[in-house]
Amino acid sequence: MARAEIITIGTEMLLGQLVDTNTAEIARALFEIGVDVHRETSVGDNEVRIAVAVREGLARAEIVICAGGLGPTVDDMTRGAIAAAVGVPLTVDEPSMRHLEALFARLDRPMAENNRVQAHFPQGAAVFENPHGSAPGFVIEHEGRAILALPGPPRELFPMLRDHAIPWIEGRFEPDAAFVTRVLRTAGVGESDLDARIADLFREQKNPTIAMLAHPGLVDVKLTAKAETRAGAAAMIDELEPVVRARLGDCIYGVGDVSLAGVIGDQLRSLALTLAVGESCTGGQLGAAFVAVPGASDYFHGGCIAYADQAKTSLLGVSPDLIERFGAVSEAVAAAMALGAQAALGADVALSTTGVAGPGGGTAEKPVGLVFVGMALPGGSVRVRRLDWPGSRDAIQRRAVIAALTMLWRELAIRPAARG
Amino acid sequence: MARAEIITIGTEMLLGQLVDTNTAEIARALFEIGVDVHRETSVGDNEVRIAVAVREGLARAEIVICAGGLGPTVDDMTRGAIAAAVGVPLTVDEPSMRHLEALFARLDRPMAENNRVQAHFPQGAAVFENPHGSAPGFVIEHEGRAILALPGPPRELFPMLRDHAIPWIEGRFEPDAAFVTRVLRTAGVGESDLDARIADLFREQKNPTIAMLAHPGLVDVKLTAKAETRAGAAAMIDELEPVVRARLGDCIYGVGDVSLAGVIGDQLRSLALTLAVGESCTGGQLGAAFVAVPGASDYFHGGCIAYADQAKTSLLGVSPDLIERFGAVSEAVAAAMALGAQAALGADVALSTTGVAGPGGGTAEKPVGLVFVGMALPGGSVRVRRLDWPGSRDAIQRRAVIAALTMLWRELAIRPAARG
Repeated sequence: MARAEIITIGTEMLLGQLVDTNTAEIARALFEIGVDVHRETSVGDNEVRIAVAVREGLARAEIVICAGGLGPTVDDMTRGAIAAAVGVPLTVDEPSMRHLEALFARLDRPMAENNRVQAHFPQGAAVFENPHGSAPGFVIEHEGRAILALPGPPRELFPMLRDHAIPWIEGRFEPDAAFVTRVLRTAGVGESDLDARIADLFREQKNPTIAMLAHPGLVDVKLTAKAETRAGAAAMIDELEPVVRARLGDCIYGVGDVSLAGVIGDQLRSLALTLAVGESCTGGQLGAAFVAVPGASDYFHGGCIAYADQAKTSLLGVSPDLIERFGAVSEAVAAAMALGAQAALGADVALSTTGVAGPGGGTAEKPVGLVFVGMALPGGSVRVRRLDWPGSRDAIQRRAVIAALTMLWRELAIRPAARG
Repeated sequence: MARAEIITIGTEMLLGQLVDTNTAEIARALFEIGVDVHRETSVGDNEVRIAVAVREGLARAEIVICAGGLGPTVDDMTRGAIAAAVGVPLTVDEPSMRHLEALFARLDRPMAENNRVQAHFPQGAAVFENPHGSAPGFVIEHEGRAILALPGPPRELFPMLRDHAIPWIEGRFEPDAAFVTRVLRTAGVGESDLDARIADLFREQKNPTIAMLAHPGLVDVKLTAKAETRAGAAAMIDELEPVVRARLGDCIYGVGDVSLAGVIGDQLRSLALTLAVGESCTGGQLGAAFVAVPGASDYFHGGCIAYADQAKTSLLGVSPDLIERFGAVSEAVAAAMALGAQAALGADVALSTTGVAGPGGGTAEKPVGLVFVGMALPGGSVRVRRLDWPGSRDAIQRRAVIAALTMLWRELAIRPAARG
């Protein structure tokens, strides 16, 4: 099996200003195609140090993947360092230069002279296009080994890794083991509860393995199998998945690359229902979670960000008496906000949030972290869930969004689909 | 000045199952006491590979800090690897053994035999106590250089780093320098434009140094000075900052730990103005950016997420004729949405967004990435900015939010403050 090393490049990492998330992403992608990673190295924006690290990596591994240092500025030195490491000059790639010129023309901005360095590559390199930024990547072969260079920003690196780097490595090195990973996504269950439900499987299973990855309010359960072929590994996962589902059953909202808001979107589409939101403490984050999903216009009408009490009344029709009597952060107001959003947007279902996100504004009776999440359903019924979690403002807002999504997902999961 | 290397140990990192946050924490702590980090290496749980990495680090740096591999299990190999790297045996440290026994007695759990390895250290090592777990750390000197070993879990590593490792290094290597960093935050200028404005300073300045860190739509310019004392370093920054400001001047929105939405909040508060939003393609993200700032209720009334055309009309009073004639993604509709949000929320100023976030829905005339950002000002005047950037749905939405924030920040920056 081919071995790889990863070299991440950037002085910010060595100054502690940036946490390196690229290594984990690259390592995971290599793992899935059966490539072993034995070492990762970070070096600063220094041409000699980068070149030395590349040479050292080539002495130990067939594949060296560099991340970072492909930008247009004087401290972007990866191109020159790799050229030096393999002893070739830098040359201009005309298609990349034309791509750069077209990009700046579309932005209607003059292209600064220093941007041109992004169309220079070590002689003999094959270029990886970058639709998400101005820095193309590349691969160059040297004495039967390969050096790949990818841009540092994750939004550029991740797609280039999946679309270009990994397919290139698979084609060139013909991996002899295949790994298949399947992620079961759960909502509404804490990590330790989940752990208790599958602890024995977790310990006994060596292949496939089971791992848990907790996000705020959501936990992913990852099954990974190794076999000679992808089909063989997939069959092993197919066998284990029902066993895990039997334990976790009703809290799995999806498999693989799906979001909870996206799954709700599919539910709404198949039930032919439309959606609105009325947000106070989440300030638009809940709406943004729905609008992050392509095609949300099929079911999402919109919503009201009723942050001030006055806006709760004027936009959502919440009676000032209700606010006076129960307070803006209350079960009654959350219910009225959900019903108000449903009516104002003419939607079938609506979600609402109102809470004390802090750090100020908490009282003994209504502490920071107290949040009410409301849900209005067709026919005028309404439900409210009370959350009371301490945490930072950001954490309280994010958990409120997840709680609202989880509430709606569960409700829709038990409804029969609309007739075609 | 002493140089250091960091070695993080753990197969999970090389499988991509864990993002390494320890390196950034260690690097930041070393930076603050004037120790340079030139390289970071990650290796798996393999005694030989750890020992080789330690020897390589010792050849380049006076200080090698290892993180991870101090637990009680068979794959915790850092103790043995460091002993092998410096050619000494492992010996028992009696106080550590008693500490371990006391820990398990307190937990009321029998101590498994393998836990005893946590009281073994390379001969000659000084032990760092671990009040947060069972794995003590240690430091061992070898030929005038030092190897420190810290536990991998951040909740154990971070306190041991601050309380033991850093003080030990300061005492042993008597750092001869202090560093001060100041970050100037800019909006509305691309990384390459900014680079062109300060490229000469960037190249000439060795101390303080100037570095740039690009986020989508925003670029940070970081000044770092080194001197014998913190006061001396701060004075050097004070001298350089006006020179950089003269070049970048009008695009600096803040210094240090501030957000653009937070700075706008301060502007609104001092101008005694209130704010509303009317969002289509950003779906609530713009409102959420404002509500992320503590105390936003002082000026932020709320907004409308007018995703469906119908909602643009019912919530924001955009005339159906306007939508029919110019399309929902148009300068006219962005202007009407901003005015509508201003009126519906009774706010002094309002921002709006409408665009094609993709990936579907683009046409030749209105491609994916076309966004109009509107701003309504007191007195009924309104401005619209047209953006046309390619990118993912997520990137287009985030850039639209930044563009709206930048537009308002600039407008408010030129207004005189409200009379007290």
